[in-house]
Amino acid sequence: MGQNRPMDDLSRVPLAPDTVGLLEGMATTRAIRRYLPEPVPDEVLRDILFAATRAPSGSNRQPFRFVVLQHGEVAAEAKRLLAGVARSLWDWKAHNDGYARGSGAVDGSPKARMARTMAEYCEHFESVPVVVLPCMIRYRAPSSSEGGSIYPACQNLLLAARALGYGGVLTGFHHPVEAELKELLGIPQEAFIAATISLGKPAGHHGPVRRRPLAELVHGDAWGSAPAWAQDPPGTCFTSAGPPKGTPTTTPPPPG
Amino acid sequence: MGQNRPMDDLSRVPLAPDTVGLLEGMATTRAIRRYLPEPVPDEVLRDILFAATRAPSGSNRQPFRFVVLQHGEVAAEAKRLLAGVARSLWDWKAHNDGYARGSGAVDGSPKARMARTMAEYCEHFESVPVVVLPCMIRYRAPSSSEGGSIYPACQNLLLAARALGYGGVLTGFHHPVEAELKELLGIPQEAFIAATISLGKPAGHHGPVRRRPLAELVHGDAWGSAPAWAQDPPGTCFTSAGPPKGTPTTTPPPPG
Repeated sequence: MGQNRPMDDLSRVPLAPDTVGLLEGMATTRAIRRYLPEPVPDEVLRDILFAATRAPSGSNRQPFRFVVLQHGEVAAEAKRLLAGVARSLWDWKAHNDGYARGSGAVDGSPKARMARTMAEYCEHFESVPVVVLPCMIRYRAPSSSEGGSIYPACQNLLLAARALGYGGVLTGFHHPVEAELKELLGIPQEAFIAATISLGKPAGHHGPVRRRPLAELVHGDAWGSAPAWAQDPPGTCFTSAGPPKGTPTTTPPPPG
Repeated sequence: MGQNRPMDDLSRVPLAPDTVGLLEGMATTRAIRRYLPEPVPDEVLRDILFAATRAPSGSNRQPFRFVVLQHGEVAAEAKRLLAGVARSLWDWKAHNDGYARGSGAVDGSPKARMARTMAEYCEHFESVPVVVLPCMIRYRAPSSSEGGSIYPACQNLLLAARALGYGGVLTGFHHPVEAELKELLGIPQEAFIAATISLGKPAGHHGPVRRRPLAELVHGDAWGSAPAWAQDPPGTCFTSAGPPKGTPTTTPPPPG
């Protein structure tokens, strides 16, 4: 794999050929939190980051920068910082969102399986193969809409991982340790760290994602009324929104 | 076309088969601002919105809602409001970003072609085939990172349009008329209108997008140093960042 090939070769290596279609890929990219213990090869990372940077941004300013944490001392230290947040966030969330209550107490239920995956993901976050911190160089005052120039790139990144047989998930683990991360990694004070994305080879697999029915998410000329065409295709998998029911929606200690 | 088929049929119509690969699609989705004067068929809109709603969001809360403006009086009125903004924004931007200066004065130059496309797009915005307003139901205080639950869906939407032979572009035309749009369309006060996206059949075509070299956008363990693998594949098209050089980066009247 990439580690054993002279690095400058990659400028002569084309993007990997596609094995997944564009519509199919979007409908089957799951959040992947369980990884096989193997590195992500350099040529895969190259293709993933190439796809990420093809995303649009306001006036094509390309204010996105991606800090890619692989091996090495500094990467390990950054992962340790993030892992500390992951663990305390899960402790809080498992309790607050009632993951152990109701069907969560039934071994093998979807809720119990989700809780186990989350617990293992957070407990061993140091060992995820790759962590990417997508950052944005601000050129205006912070706003909700500035995300329009960084989160499309994050989505491309996750879709590209799917295209190449890998997977990841977008989290907010950096929030409580943003200052420490900026110091450690030399990220400029004015940059916005938009996410913490972990990547690796899935221990499970991708597949159709579950969402609310299309008619609940799409409105026509008036809010609340779905157009007649807003009908899910045959075989669609559904789920209700968000964390387990009865969850308080008050602000958690760190955004998740 | 969808208009002539009984609407409830779409629940029995599968997603369109893929003709574009996932990696290829991301590398060749351009901002499309020139449209043929034909409607977007219902089955195409269904597939586009289905892909949009497959996007991830925090805790899979699916806070995204899409107001799809097609034909009809209310849609026409909303498009008129947005067109007014588009025109005054372009007037401002053409001057501020110096589109008529330097190579912009040379007929047929990339800058002059971009200026003409923008001028025509903004001048006739009322007539774009479809406008989508992606909104987010807030469950926390506004923040820069909340975009992580709405802009990935916007990117899926644009990629899906590409997959189906259509195209679009994400703008901020709603900002100065947000209150009027909410009133007109019944959008709840607390919802965040994240973008104004126009969609249609391209008069031009998609193709490889241009970006800065990968090594300028990707950092390793330390900000400013690119990993050895950050090399663009053969045949990559490049461009510098943002609007024409020498552009003031001060805040424009409305965010663009």
